[in-house]
Amino acid sequence: MPIITLLTDFGSQDYFVGAMKGVILSLSSAAQIIDLTHEVPPQDVPAAAFNLLAVYKDFPPGTIHLAVVDPGVGSSRRAIVIECGGQFFVGPDNGIFSWICEREDLFRVFQVTNERFFRQPLSNTFHGRDVFAPVAAALADGISSEDFGPEVEDPVLLESLQPRAAGDGSYLARIIHIDRFGNCITNLTRDHMLMETRSKLLINGREITSFRKFFADQPQTDDELFCLEGSAGFLEIAARNASAAKILKAERDDEVRLISA
Amino acid sequence: MPIITLLTDFGSQDYFVGAMKGVILSLSSAAQIIDLTHEVPPQDVPAAAFNLLAVYKDFPPGTIHLAVVDPGVGSSRRAIVIECGGQFFVGPDNGIFSWICEREDLFRVFQVTNERFFRQPLSNTFHGRDVFAPVAAALADGISSEDFGPEVEDPVLLESLQPRAAGDGSYLARIIHIDRFGNCITNLTRDHMLMETRSKLLINGREITSFRKFFADQPQTDDELFCLEGSAGFLEIAARNASAAKILKAERDDEVRLISA
Amino acid sequence: MPIITLLTDFGSQDYFVGAMKGVILSLSSAAQIIDLTHEVPPQDVPAAAFNLLAVYKDFPPGTIHLAVVDPGVGSSRRAIVIECGGQFFVGPDNGIFSWICEREDLFRVFQVTNERFFRQPLSNTFHGRDVFAPVAAALADGISSEDFGPEVEDPVLLESLQPRAAGDGSYLARIIHIDRFGNCITNLTRDHMLMETRSKLLINGREITSFRKFFADQPQTDDELFCLEGSAGFLEIAARNASAAKILKAERDDEVRLISA
Repeated sequence: MPIITLLTDFGSQDYFVGAMKGVILSLSSAAQIIDLTHEVPPQDVPAAAFNLLAVYKDFPPGTIHLAVVDPGVGSSRRAIVIECGGQFFVGPDNGIFSWICEREDLFRVFQVTNERFFRQPLSNTFHGRDVFAPVAAALADGISSEDFGPEVEDPVLLESLQPRAAGDGSYLARIIHIDRFGNCITNLTRDHMLMETRSKLLINGREITSFRKFFADQPQTDDELFCLEGSAGFLEIAARNASAAKILKAERDDEVRLISA
Repeated sequence: MPIITLLTDFGSQDYFVGAMKGVILSLSSAAQIIDLTHEVPPQDVPAAAFNLLAVYKDFPPGTIHLAVVDPGVGSSRRAIVIECGGQFFVGPDNGIFSWICEREDLFRVFQVTNERFFRQPLSNTFHGRDVFAPVAAALADGISSEDFGPEVEDPVLLESLQPRAAGDGSYLARIIHIDRFGNCITNLTRDHMLMETRSKLLINGREITSFRKFFADQPQTDDELFCLEGSAGFLEIAARNASAAKILKAERDDEVRLISA
Repeated sequence: MPIITLLTDFGSQDYFVGAMKGVILSLSSAAQIIDLTHEVPPQDVPAAAFNLLAVYKDFPPGTIHLAVVDPGVGSSRRAIVIECGGQFFVGPDNGIFSWICEREDLFRVFQVTNERFFRQPLSNTFHGRDVFAPVAAALADGISSEDFGPEVEDPVLLESLQPRAAGDGSYLARIIHIDRFGNCITNLTRDHMLMETRSKLLINGREITSFRKFFADQPQTDDELFCLEGSAGFLEIAARNASAAKILKAERDDEVRLISA
């Protein structure tokens, strides 16, 4: 059974998610629908992009990821299908999948223009139901990406995940996500870290020198800041029983500097 | 695989939804369970009725919609099964399905009295698990509606969805739902609108003359009110980045008057 | 299709639940994933234990219950698989399943030490994805509990669910759970109640003498406290349209005394 995952900012209170599920199941009775989350903050494309990046590789080849965080619905923004890493991605062309493409390097993007796949009547406000859901169902039924429309050479990209090497061995990085516990996820990975040497992190005027393996690693105060390698593969700034983001007054895109001493 | 959708006001924190799923899967291993929402405001039957109305047609024929918003649980209110529009509806007889029946026109209602379908022991407070879930599972296994109990001629109805024609070409309508963004959904549809003529909407002393195709249609201020045809097929009053309900101090059932000028 | 239920405190906003689902589906394409809840209060093991206890028996034999409320992740706490009541339970060894074992009496516990079942790289902070999900998938594929590691004789237990008989016919009991409506669930059951005799409940200096069959049983004020047998099989203290917990200033583990007059 082909898997279709759903990620949206529709919340759980209204009929929106249910309508998408109904359309999928009406068109492809074999599809297996898996909810990722519907609680992406409204219109927050980078938050959606981060959660997709953190999770897509755990799904089997051929999985169809349907993601609808779509501030531009009804305007001229493109609808796209991406083939990447042996999986499919369906959604608006606003960068929501661009970090996955950046990581995988090889990918093809197709614009969805073939109206025979659209639910009729096509609403102007709910392409999740009327465009993206039927396209995902068609993919589950074996339709080729080429059948939806022409290939796209210039998909919308979010800012790159690569930190900048400063030359002196330090890196200029940033906060790419803050989770609901207030952990601050950076775009630094194991590759940038020399865990065996003494490193420190500078952010918002604070210096963080403690690198731990897990949350309960050593005795510490509840609000002491430390770094650890998070489960999404990025260096995170955390506190044991407090919000690191609050302590740091940190927001997404705040600059982080890694210095290897 | 027969589809059973779930819509409740149980929230997502307690065991209630899980218990219903367990009962269904214990009785009908082929059933495919699809969550619509469990975040209907507690005991809010019209909100449940609206969300069901907006979504049922997107599901395939034979789908079983199980809806439990049930302030009268344990009292003498009836449990019912409805056949309507090629689908099945299972829940309390409190009007939760009446807008679907009104739209489809043809329907049959059966009271669930046959106790052999009930989970034992039958609790007085949780018919979602002990009555409605096993009845839905039985439908998924091919049991006929007639087997649950006698036909009902007088199901409980919510107030009709039909606006009243005022004779002078205007309509007296009302707010039937307010979604989580504060959009005010009316019971006016495309049939009542002469989009090519100049129309206006009167509500709570305000006059709305702007009719748009989608949220990002034209430059506008964030709190300017406008109308558009929403994805559920009804005329909605919205603001681009604000709650129309807050701006209008609108509540459900507030009167709306459509005037074609 | 083997059923794997998921219960966590991960919330619905982040990628955590989606990652677990992906791992399961990558390893066992036949598994049917059923969400119980992901809204257990963070790190609240007794709340998770109560919800599991209330729901497991509604699922069919062979169901695999995967529960991750895991304050000790990354420390030396054991990962376990339990066979109990014809079902499987996978999670941390912190008492999360102990009330089920107490009720069923017969059970076997195995520590998960065989690293060939772990997702690689094994993170220190997300055993839900890297240990528990792949173990659940392996169980769904027919792996024996013995294959995960050695049998455990001393699993961690929560405080027993048995009220203490005071000898004079009264029982010393306690609040074991407070649900989102403020209903206070005690560890008293039908066995301790002589409903035909006059009983009363003492809690936090209040005396409750009203025993009802369901919430809408009799005319009453909205904040009058009463007892009823709840759907999880325990005696609950409730108010019709108010939070009993607030009225009583009750917290979990508060003492409740049942006196049969």
